[in-house]
Amino acid sequence: MNFNDLKRVLVGEPIPTSQAQEECLDKPTALAVLSSDALSSVAYATQEILLILVTVGTAARWLSLPIAVAIAALLFIVIISYRQTILAYPKGGGAYIVAKDNLGEYPALVAGAALLTDYVLTVSVSVAAGVEALSSAFPQLLVYEVPIGVLIIALVTWANLRGIKESGRLFSVPTFIFIASILLLLIVGFAKAAFVGVPPGEAFIHPTTGTETLSAFLILRAFASGCTALTGIEAISDGVMIFRSPEARNARTTLTWMGVILGTLFLGITGLAFLYGAAPAEETIVSQVARQVFGDSIFYYIVQFATVFILILAANTAFSDFPRLSYFLARDGYLPRQFANLGDRLVFSNGILLLGLLSSLLLAAFGGSVNALIPLYAVGVFTSFTLSQSGMVKRWWTRRGEGWERSLAVNALGAFTTGLVLVVVGVTKFLSGAWAVIALIPALVWVFSKIKAHYESVTRQLSLQAINYQPRKLKQKVVLPVGGIHRGILQAIDYARSITDDVTAVYVDIDTLSTEAFCKRWQEWTDVPLKIIPSPTRSIVEPLLQYLRESSDDPDEVTTVVVPTFVTAKWWQNLLHNQTAFLIRSALLLRRRKVVVTVRFYLDE
Amino acid sequence: MNFNDLKRVLVGEPIPTSQAQEECLDKPTALAVLSSDALSSVAYATQEILLILVTVGTAARWLSLPIAVAIAALLFIVIISYRQTILAYPKGGGAYIVAKDNLGEYPALVAGAALLTDYVLTVSVSVAAGVEALSSAFPQLLVYEVPIGVLIIALVTWANLRGIKESGRLFSVPTFIFIASILLLLIVGFAKAAFVGVPPGEAFIHPTTGTETLSAFLILRAFASGCTALTGIEAISDGVMIFRSPEARNARTTLTWMGVILGTLFLGITGLAFLYGAAPAEETIVSQVARQVFGDSIFYYIVQFATVFILILAANTAFSDFPRLSYFLARDGYLPRQFANLGDRLVFSNGILLLGLLSSLLLAAFGGSVNALIPLYAVGVFTSFTLSQSGMVKRWWTRRGEGWERSLAVNALGAFTTGLVLVVVGVTKFLSGAWAVIALIPALVWVFSKIKAHYESVTRQLSLQAINYQPRKLKQKVVLPVGGIHRGILQAIDYARSITDDVTAVYVDIDTLSTEAFCKRWQEWTDVPLKIIPSPTRSIVEPLLQYLRESSDDPDEVTTVVVPTFVTAKWWQNLLHNQTAFLIRSALLLRRRKVVVTVRFYLDE
Repeated sequence: MNFNDLKRVLVGEPIPTSQAQEECLDKPTALAVLSSDALSSVAYATQEILLILVTVGTAARWLSLPIAVAIAALLFIVIISYRQTILAYPKGGGAYIVAKDNLGEYPALVAGAALLTDYVLTVSVSVAAGVEALSSAFPQLLVYEVPIGVLIIALVTWANLRGIKESGRLFSVPTFIFIASILLLLIVGFAKAAFVGVPPGEAFIHPTTGTETLSAFLILRAFASGCTALTGIEAISDGVMIFRSPEARNARTTLTWMGVILGTLFLGITGLAFLYGAAPAEETIVSQVARQVFGDSIFYYIVQFATVFILILAANTAFSDFPRLSYFLARDGYLPRQFANLGDRLVFSNGILLLGLLSSLLLAAFGGSVNALIPLYAVGVFTSFTLSQSGMVKRWWTRRGEGWERSLAVNALGAFTTGLVLVVVGVTKFLSGAWAVIALIPALVWVFSKIKAHYESVTRQLSLQAINYQPRKLKQKVVLPVGGIHRGILQAIDYARSITDDVTAVYVDIDTLSTEAFCKRWQEWTDVPLKIIPSPTRSIVEPLLQYLRESSDDPDEVTTVVVPTFVTAKWWQNLLHNQTAFLIRSALLLRRRKVVVTVRFYLDE
Repeated sequence: MNFNDLKRVLVGEPIPTSQAQEECLDKPTALAVLSSDALSSVAYATQEILLILVTVGTAARWLSLPIAVAIAALLFIVIISYRQTILAYPKGGGAYIVAKDNLGEYPALVAGAALLTDYVLTVSVSVAAGVEALSSAFPQLLVYEVPIGVLIIALVTWANLRGIKESGRLFSVPTFIFIASILLLLIVGFAKAAFVGVPPGEAFIHPTTGTETLSAFLILRAFASGCTALTGIEAISDGVMIFRSPEARNARTTLTWMGVILGTLFLGITGLAFLYGAAPAEETIVSQVARQVFGDSIFYYIVQFATVFILILAANTAFSDFPRLSYFLARDGYLPRQFANLGDRLVFSNGILLLGLLSSLLLAAFGGSVNALIPLYAVGVFTSFTLSQSGMVKRWWTRRGEGWERSLAVNALGAFTTGLVLVVVGVTKFLSGAWAVIALIPALVWVFSKIKAHYESVTRQLSLQAINYQPRKLKQKVVLPVGGIHRGILQAIDYARSITDDVTAVYVDIDTLSTEAFCKRWQEWTDVPLKIIPSPTRSIVEPLLQYLRESSDDPDEVTTVVVPTFVTAKWWQNLLHNQTAFLIRSALLLRRRKVVVTVRFYLDE
């Protein structure tokens, strides 16, 4: 089985280009498909706020409430800001596109770098959180978190390489179940708290006093952690084109709905976590709350599995976003053009593979811990928010269409707020990991521009502009290195003669006796002129190169070196032969105006 | 700096073939040069006997005396046996040559396999013993034994790659010093014991009772260990041609002398070890004896350093023997022919490198322990002794020259005795390591014959016998796959046209719009006929292969596929380009009657 067969089995038969199509989705389905990334952050955002607060002590938990309200306010600002983007970019306005359109090359590259980083983190964080939700329900899986996570990424990668279409109906199910089950959790949870009373949670049973003291910096750190709740809300504005007509209007409505749902779920979970005294532990906050509200009933398991599935869906969305952005960057010359190739299955296979690889490595490097990955996450997200909103500000300022002042004000508020949060996140999370992303983004931008410069230089060097091409009749001269005379050589002679009549065979003399015998045999078999070149040090390649160097430099002449070689029937048999043909090829690789042809004689045994 | 420059610095400039020569040595120098391997075994043979005996208890040490006498008797038989070989093979009669000459292919291959194994072990054992002698004098080196050993092998390998000639005078010095210092040790040692009395040795201070019981099997095991004293005595009969005339006579005299010296040193050291109560420990037996005889004086250090040097010389002899035998085997078609290539420096570099590699790996795998390596050693040696002597028996029997009965009897005694010892060694050492060599030898023989079969099959397939060759005028047809039109393509067109007028450019259509634009541009620049082939699945290579498959199968026509490619200025830039040329080349590798030429366009930036 060769590589191609293996590929067929794994990813399936190639799909013809003609089958490429986009499907259009109604609003609820589009909401479900595009919001899994955003909504799934409910699974870990509250927990990340509490993790910072309990370093002061479980008593500081109440601060999660005002922080959650502040994040909800931020969510509101970002949502109204993005509603404007949708109007302006009905074909989809990702941060890279918006920044490139309005702010120019370097801001666009920064947005591109931030987004690529972000997509990798989306996969790692979502899968890590999904595995944590799973092992909260089944603690015996705790020790296998990393292998389970890597396996999930591998499966998602494989599915995307085969080209699962985001077939709305199927993919919307887990999202709807997640929304419904969390809403049920909130209703039952708050009702129970109001009418029945709550069983004592972790924070009441084991109150702790932490080692940190409460400070404005610590509160900002908790806020910065919670801002991961906003990741993924740009998805709707990126994907306007999948809505039914009128696209922009439907997308705006859907975005608003998503904001409302996300806000409700996030505030609700944070509230319940406070009421029920949930505190960070190996079991996730959502799992603790759900267990206390539902006991060990089927509803608890529905919440956990819905959480696992929506998190895997969230990871899956990055497998559309990352390859698409890589395609944009490659098309514009900032990434290797292999990322612009549409694979066998109509997907950008190289981008998918790279994302799968990077996110698994990241997951494994951080031991599958959501908490360890979070500090890296928000920097990229808020960088792209800020650039995207700033781009919109610039756009309104330049175009000044009807009502531009109000629109500019909205986007300016969005840009300012997200910029401020970016600074907060960058500063408060710097030492715990944000530094890596802050260093990585400019490094990526540098790589992008090096790549662009190379492609531009190649285009210039290959350009037909300002050249005056006249077909030239080149004279062929063939040099045929021979080491003996046998069927393979006779075949090579026939080939050489079919190119030109000017053929010279060259034999390297390392042993006078054999050379004499060879000359005699040569003349018995062929009349091709034979040139003997001496090799006092027994090297084959050196004297040959020397001979070729000395041969004519006529610009109207081209020398083709015909190298006879044989192809063995089994690979290991190659080890039994001097690799002279290969050595000659390699040595001539950098000799301009020398063309090398290998004429192969096939051994059948 | 490229590979060639690096090679020049490491091994020096190539040496012209004309400088090849052999020097002739007088008897004492030849003795010194050829007997380092044999004499150096004095450094470990006694110790290996004692190591087995003390498993019964230190009281069993006395048995080393009769065992040593038996080994000396064996030595006597082997020496007189080899004196005959020298007469019969004045050009050098190694076991492989003698077996091939008289016993046929398979016995010769067994001898070859045994000898190759043996040479690798000679290096590992000698270097390990040398390092042990060194760390007996300087115990702080004990923990570095493996790295020191590997370093020594690397240095010896390097020196041999440069081609140190066995320049007699220089190389004879350590051997003479070794002989002299051990003789001095014996004289002073026995005199001291007779007239002064001996200080109490290890065995007297710490007498032990072991866990084994004394048995005939155990005594045979101890004898088998001691037989390593005989390793290397075939060197003189292998190297008859380096003696001054009359070669055979001088070689015989020298062999006798070597036997006498080896017997004396070995019996003497074994006797002293018994008298002075030496017992196996981290310090070697020779070092223990020398320290008791000479105290901490300069003479002690002379003995130790002479031991280290003669052991390194012993390892060095294998670096002539192994490559020479590999050359014989390669010349006869049993090893890859790369082993028959004389390197830049007139040495068989591939054999030297392989020996260096294998012996270092072996040394490291066995933790630099002589004791662990010894059980593997004697099997190969006695296999080749037995085959070589049996070959001589066969020879006398066939030729029946004057006095053949006596000669036959001598060699038959040799063959019988060494064969018996081989059985003893194989049986008593089987579990402690000999099994590996016993399994390896037939495996090597199998590999040798597979290689031979391949070369014979290639010769048959390439043979000009029974073919009726008439030069054929083949018609050239060029197919030129293009993906655009630029300077590189124009250059490729000129090249293609220099081969034939029948050039067809082929463009794979993966996107109708670009294809139309391309066709228009193509016609503006050239009149080469352009064939558009559709690719519904966007593959470039598949449709091209399909097209080539469908093209003519006329036996008088040959299709050359001219693949335009460019060579980037820096290696990393290659990562930024689709490797289409490479993919096309690879895909066509197994298509017969299709010749691929890469026409390279050089990018300068």
